[in-house]
Amino acid sequence: MAQLENRIAQGRGDEIADVVLRGGRMLDLVTGELLEGDVALCGDTVVGTLDSYEGREVVDVSGLILVPGFIDTHLHIESSLVTPYEFDRCVTPRGVTTAICDPHEIANVIGAPGVRYFQQAARHTLLSIKVQLSSCVPSTHMETAGAELLAADIAELMGDPSGLGMAEFMNYPGVIHRDPQAMDKLRLFEGGHVDGHCPLLSGRDLNAYVAAGIRTEHEATSPEEALEKLRKGMRVLIREGSVSKDMHALRPLLTERTAPYMCLCTDDRNPLDIGEHGHLDYMIREMIRLGTTPLAAYRAATLSAAEAFGLKDRGMIAPGKRADIVAVDSLEGCHAAMVWAGGVQVTDDAFAARTVIPPVGRGSVKAPTVTGASFRSGGNRTETDVIGIREGQILTDHLHEDIPITDGDKRPDLARDLVRIAVVERHGKNGNIASGFVKGFGLKSGAIASTVCHDHHNIACVGVDYDDMALAANRLGEIEGGFVVASGGKVLAELALPVAGLMSLEPFEVVRDRLEQLRAAAKSLGVTLEEPFLQLAFLALPVIPSLKITDRGMVDVMKFEIIA
Amino acid sequence: MAQLENRIAQGRGDEIADVVLRGGRMLDLVTGELLEGDVALCGDTVVGTLDSYEGREVVDVSGLILVPGFIDTHLHIESSLVTPYEFDRCVTPRGVTTAICDPHEIANVIGAPGVRYFQQAARHTLLSIKVQLSSCVPSTHMETAGAELLAADIAELMGDPSGLGMAEFMNYPGVIHRDPQAMDKLRLFEGGHVDGHCPLLSGRDLNAYVAAGIRTEHEATSPEEALEKLRKGMRVLIREGSVSKDMHALRPLLTERTAPYMCLCTDDRNPLDIGEHGHLDYMIREMIRLGTTPLAAYRAATLSAAEAFGLKDRGMIAPGKRADIVAVDSLEGCHAAMVWAGGVQVTDDAFAARTVIPPVGRGSVKAPTVTGASFRSGGNRTETDVIGIREGQILTDHLHEDIPITDGDKRPDLARDLVRIAVVERHGKNGNIASGFVKGFGLKSGAIASTVCHDHHNIACVGVDYDDMALAANRLGEIEGGFVVASGGKVLAELALPVAGLMSLEPFEVVRDRLEQLRAAAKSLGVTLEEPFLQLAFLALPVIPSLKITDRGMVDVMKFEIIA
Repeated sequence: MAQLENRIAQGRGDEIADVVLRGGRMLDLVTGELLEGDVALCGDTVVGTLDSYEGREVVDVSGLILVPGFIDTHLHIESSLVTPYEFDRCVTPRGVTTAICDPHEIANVIGAPGVRYFQQAARHTLLSIKVQLSSCVPSTHMETAGAELLAADIAELMGDPSGLGMAEFMNYPGVIHRDPQAMDKLRLFEGGHVDGHCPLLSGRDLNAYVAAGIRTEHEATSPEEALEKLRKGMRVLIREGSVSKDMHALRPLLTERTAPYMCLCTDDRNPLDIGEHGHLDYMIREMIRLGTTPLAAYRAATLSAAEAFGLKDRGMIAPGKRADIVAVDSLEGCHAAMVWAGGVQVTDDAFAARTVIPPVGRGSVKAPTVTGASFRSGGNRTETDVIGIREGQILTDHLHEDIPITDGDKRPDLARDLVRIAVVERHGKNGNIASGFVKGFGLKSGAIASTVCHDHHNIACVGVDYDDMALAANRLGEIEGGFVVASGGKVLAELALPVAGLMSLEPFEVVRDRLEQLRAAAKSLGVTLEEPFLQLAFLALPVIPSLKITDRGMVDVMKFEIIA
Repeated sequence: MAQLENRIAQGRGDEIADVVLRGGRMLDLVTGELLEGDVALCGDTVVGTLDSYEGREVVDVSGLILVPGFIDTHLHIESSLVTPYEFDRCVTPRGVTTAICDPHEIANVIGAPGVRYFQQAARHTLLSIKVQLSSCVPSTHMETAGAELLAADIAELMGDPSGLGMAEFMNYPGVIHRDPQAMDKLRLFEGGHVDGHCPLLSGRDLNAYVAAGIRTEHEATSPEEALEKLRKGMRVLIREGSVSKDMHALRPLLTERTAPYMCLCTDDRNPLDIGEHGHLDYMIREMIRLGTTPLAAYRAATLSAAEAFGLKDRGMIAPGKRADIVAVDSLEGCHAAMVWAGGVQVTDDAFAARTVIPPVGRGSVKAPTVTGASFRSGGNRTETDVIGIREGQILTDHLHEDIPITDGDKRPDLARDLVRIAVVERHGKNGNIASGFVKGFGLKSGAIASTVCHDHHNIACVGVDYDDMALAANRLGEIEGGFVVASGGKVLAELALPVAGLMSLEPFEVVRDRLEQLRAAAKSLGVTLEEPFLQLAFLALPVIPSLKITDRGMVDVMKFEIIA
């Protein structure tokens, strides 16, 4: 924050303000009024409003409405597939000036150094990145991750200026059953902020979870679920990711009355969606279009988010607050014409001037070389557990199909849309290969493979042709992870993600183009899903029902056990 | 807070809850609903709501409405004239379960040990007392206080579990003019909570004050003033004290929209008012009677107060929150039938079980023995500065009267209601005696004197008869401070306040009776003011306009200087 004496002197007009925004109107998040007057900035801090000021730099914002910068209250930056620097460049021009992130994707691959990478990058981005500490690495005991974070490891990561608490406590069974490791982690943050993750939890189970001191939650998918969480003192974060989309369901709950206690988040959102629809700006725009009052929508995106996470230095355009300001065309349009993040106007030059620290997690794909035969799998009986995909959801169905055994192998059956799915351990720990069946891709030939595979981020592979599956999986080793579409013995499209197998070294625009190529290539193989790689990524996440697959086998999530 | 595993186990119903409140309805501060269900307590913490529970103790609250305990966001407990223990006994049964206090009265008399006394007592009261650290001891350079708190002294008091920041920064000229001592104090709390006090400050001066990082304020006396403070990001605390009463003026600003950003406080409220009208319960009741919605009134008294001061552990009846619960007859009545403070039911037995630490500040009145002649004062000219009292306000008028000089002395003039006022330094520092004239008491004979005299707490004395003034002032030395009414050479009524000359050792009921006797005695001397001792106490406070008196002389507050 700008120096105390300077803030006071510029606020009082004794010294000329560093920057003055003149001619716009400002949305007052408390009263709901649109107010006129200069906004004076001293360094990274607003020091004057509703008055007239002289400025070393005066910016004309006539015709625009000034609103506080938007706060994404829960996301995994890794899911944007770019580094924090490129994420910054992708969303800050849209008005997102604070991102409360959980680096648990990279933590699952390389552990504490991955968290530290985010903490250090957070010092240099225009966007204010708050790095919560990942509570559940790995997400369960039913997978092989690249690293583990115990309470002691988390304790060593505390104290960084980017910190504000513990990230989503996904191991909700561990909380309510008082698992000692979970208790140790919660105790680290007693009295502080612990973010939640407890889909469908209710009644006394929810009471127990909240009584543990967990304050915020983003997994509610119905108004009833969100209402119970609100009534029990949780701040509810409305999520609109690329796969999990809850905004339309929860929006009716967001009124002027509840807005001080609700927030917005994106959780996992990829550059394609950000490019096509937007980020929090899209959520605000869409909610207002559907009938939410602008005051409620903007409060949830700004002041309420700051309050929920104890960020007393932001959430309003007011003296003493961080100069996070978005000049939008209209409250309804929510198109950012100009953005200031911590007093810095968001421009190409400002992005270019950032100190860039080298990415970590290079060469993280240490999988065994596989062959087509690696994916053969038979068994004793034809009745087979099959993952049933629900398009646009991360929940799956647990199906049962009869698949005949031919030469000791169950073969894909295109007529029934039953194709192979496999997970190959790629952290150099044990070389596990597990395989099973999935229904819902529509794949007719070839294979797709990915190292973005929640949360352990092993290699996930879906295919009709075992040799193409092997080609795709082995190619991921060569390009240090990413996405591959292969068919007929050839790679049709790929995106390298050399940063821990999760993030690209390229600008987000390049990533976006590659994603479109991958989507087209997958479609050419018959895939009917809109986002095949995103759906694939969540098929390996054993904390979301019902049937999933990890490198250790098929997981019955309802029983929380690996199927023998 | 109750132990983590116990909270979870009792919240889940795996273990029997310590206490269950059954049969009532609960006001949900977020949604505004009245909801049914048991409320389960584990030790000092709520662990279950909106469900059914078994309890070791089950309390029938049928027909009652459960609301969160009330939070007084700014007060000086010393102004209740009783110790923190008696204050606890006086207000907690009315539903006040948190008091954010500024111990600057006792700090002005004995310094840091006075603050420590409050910090230590706070560990034992049923009421949760949060002790803010006093920013302005003494209030100005124009008075002799018993002690001084510099930034280094304040730094030594930080870190106590009762702490939550710095108390009202009254030296607002020091802030906006960047006085180095003020800057040092503000810097101690950068990023933390600093409470404000800036009556009538507006425009760029207010911007500068808020830009210094000051977040909350209770001196707004008009809706316009409060609105400007709200728009500039301050939380506005509506005050209803015994002298300063702003509730009726500010109430229209408290709506459902603004309620999340407004709070209630009493600042200075004596046991007579608490007994006759109530405390925060009175404010809630009265505001609802006048048309404020119950949701807005209760939010301001509970959740919004907790949010404003970063008290994330309270403000709602919800799992994980402190078990501060008031069972009221109705939302409109706001009469507490039962109260739980930190899980302890508020009863005579619970009060009796508290550990009592011995009070400090005994024998603090070290004034010179005075005679009637001590109060004689003439001068060169008849034109005389006279303090004009405004009944029920702490603001005064700066009057000018011609008073003839007889035998080198200006005599009281009953026809014009001009009587002597004097301040006698009583901290054993210099024995200063300053005297002047005041208009508005209606006093016809005798004298009244007090050691409650903001903020330096010297002896303030008003009289028609100099010998009675001397008698009253000297009597204060004998009883270790307090209030005295004297006439005809006799003490008519008195209240001893041996704790720093500010607080009684008696139960609050005894203090209340004595105050009534003092009021009656003052009336018998002609006094027309409803609260003569309270009015007197503020005549010595040189941070409130217009004309005041300290031991160093008459103070022109507008010029911020002593009149030569």
